[in-house]
Amino acid sequence: MSAEDRSQPERAHLRSMKAYVPGAQPDARAIKLNTNENPFPPSPRVMAALAAINARSLQRYPDPLATAFREAAAELHQVSPEEVVATNGGDELLRLAVTTFVDPGRAIGVASPSYGVYSVLAEIHRARLSVSTLTERWAVPADAAQRWNADGAQMAILTNPHAPSGSLTKPEDLERLAADFKGILLVDEAYADFIDPDLRFDSMALATRLPNVLVLRTLSKGYALAGLRLAYGVGSRPLVEPMLAKTKDSYNVDAVAQALGIVALQDNAYAQTTWDQIRKERIRLAEGLEALGFSVAPSQTNFVLAAIPAASLKSARFLKDELEARGVYVRWFDESRLENRLRISVGTREENSAVLTLISDLMKTP
Amino acid sequence: MSAEDRSQPERAHLRSMKAYVPGAQPDARAIKLNTNENPFPPSPRVMAALAAINARSLQRYPDPLATAFREAAAELHQVSPEEVVATNGGDELLRLAVTTFVDPGRAIGVASPSYGVYSVLAEIHRARLSVSTLTERWAVPADAAQRWNADGAQMAILTNPHAPSGSLTKPEDLERLAADFKGILLVDEAYADFIDPDLRFDSMALATRLPNVLVLRTLSKGYALAGLRLAYGVGSRPLVEPMLAKTKDSYNVDAVAQALGIVALQDNAYAQTTWDQIRKERIRLAEGLEALGFSVAPSQTNFVLAAIPAASLKSARFLKDELEARGVYVRWFDESRLENRLRISVGTREENSAVLTLISDLMKTP
Repeated sequence: MSAEDRSQPERAHLRSMKAYVPGAQPDARAIKLNTNENPFPPSPRVMAALAAINARSLQRYPDPLATAFREAAAELHQVSPEEVVATNGGDELLRLAVTTFVDPGRAIGVASPSYGVYSVLAEIHRARLSVSTLTERWAVPADAAQRWNADGAQMAILTNPHAPSGSLTKPEDLERLAADFKGILLVDEAYADFIDPDLRFDSMALATRLPNVLVLRTLSKGYALAGLRLAYGVGSRPLVEPMLAKTKDSYNVDAVAQALGIVALQDNAYAQTTWDQIRKERIRLAEGLEALGFSVAPSQTNFVLAAIPAASLKSARFLKDELEARGVYVRWFDESRLENRLRISVGTREENSAVLTLISDLMKTP
Repeated sequence: MSAEDRSQPERAHLRSMKAYVPGAQPDARAIKLNTNENPFPPSPRVMAALAAINARSLQRYPDPLATAFREAAAELHQVSPEEVVATNGGDELLRLAVTTFVDPGRAIGVASPSYGVYSVLAEIHRARLSVSTLTERWAVPADAAQRWNADGAQMAILTNPHAPSGSLTKPEDLERLAADFKGILLVDEAYADFIDPDLRFDSMALATRLPNVLVLRTLSKGYALAGLRLAYGVGSRPLVEPMLAKTKDSYNVDAVAQALGIVALQDNAYAQTTWDQIRKERIRLAEGLEALGFSVAPSQTNFVLAAIPAASLKSARFLKDELEARGVYVRWFDESRLENRLRISVGTREENSAVLTLISDLMKTP
């Protein structure tokens, strides 16, 4: 290592890299609507499982394959445990898939805009990005697969329902995309639990039937376990096996997450009651924002993306800062097509009312 | 993706890769001396911290930077929190360092034999291995740095005290190695807590003073928290910063691990009582094995590496299998220089007595 290297010892391509910046983590008194957590606590049965964790579970290495958790996920989705890999949050599955399926120098397809971690993972891996721009209504364009194929993408990542817009790609469109795309289609379903029951479809059947579809699910949002870091991928065995047996860290999911995750999935009925409330509040929050002149994209997630009224003299960034100064955290993205919008997680009824009142007040002040 | 790719969709270099196989995880009735866990439970204060975890901690994302935990580690080692990065077990720090400091195609230096994960990480990353073979007494050869430099290694990993032999590299030798080596020297101190007090040295001062030394510590063994997945790296800011700010997964350490890890480090006095007992038992276990004709390498860890008596008709593998059939798990490695040895973790007094009695019996049977 030469002398000048020692001030920047990281690999050359990482030196100028811009990191992903997660949403702020304010203290418990804040109204936190900036990182799409579930506003309701985890199942009481999960808390009981936490209380039952004994010293031995901490002392010994966890099951490296998270077998019992994968069985619980397989049971829930009616797939085989061999079609499931458990990960330390959704971010780990995304990174693992990149590591496992993408050669440095090759491309990863994304739809723009989307979750900032995708491009950061590509940059760390020295993969190129193949960008398909979403339509005005945040739909995947008809030529997305062609674009990705033309760039030689080995993998593409699609958030469905989409973040930060909340829009849903239908199963027939997903299936056509998977058929047209020559690489692996990773469908990031972090928000799938919040889809309206009449729009839901069995993406797991799609994932295990199609050879190139890998579906990501997380317990962070739907099951109110963001603090625990637990997610999983579902796909055909040839996709899951190399991650499970070769590329993941040996003991990637800790014993507490495995134990609580099993109970959370088994008590799916409890989680559904929170999803129902969130869906109701999503409508109320969107209607409240529209009444204030905002334009709100139809959302199938636990957040809404609201565009500032065209006539407003207030910018989205101003509103975000002013809300934050009043203890209310929402998300604002400094990027094309998003800079005049706020992404607001659906909170409890009280939280949503508070944010609507505050925004209303802020819009009125000169 | 062509039709034949779909049966093996992983990257070409991963197809024939041999995965790391962790030690078996038998049920609670077994005597488990195969993966170097602490035989004593975690601190009662850690268990109290577990009982105090509330629903909100699970519901919300954890601190992405594990700030309070890094402060606790910095306090313990008298370094700055900016010189500490927290990881999801030691394996994550190893992988992060490879991702951050090694370009695919370049070499990673290792001393052979050592922890199998090192070579697996290199293979996943498509890095080459630069192998320096340990001396007969498991010491790092004098020309190790030259070997690694000749192969253009950007990083080298040294386990100290060494696994699976238990031997200790002295601080002056470490410092010379770091000075001679042109890349980054990652010192894996997973077992450092078990070093005899009169042989201990301040490796953290070394790590923060030398620009190319990164020290790994884990709470898995010394603090009896293998199930929790918590480790950390200590080094100068230019080494730590890119991992902390750029290459690690956003929320890599969960909220439970952060909360319990702080208490574990603060109650270091409790952990030390377990290390004292383990050191005493390490002597008794080694002496017991030597009395049975085994040759035992001097160990500064919580395990011993014992070579089968030269005159024995029993193989190490046979003994390992026979012990396992009797509910006692020890580790055996099917590789050069290790195939006639058993690595036995130091257990409780009762566990060590049981394994000694069983081995004695097995050695006597015709």
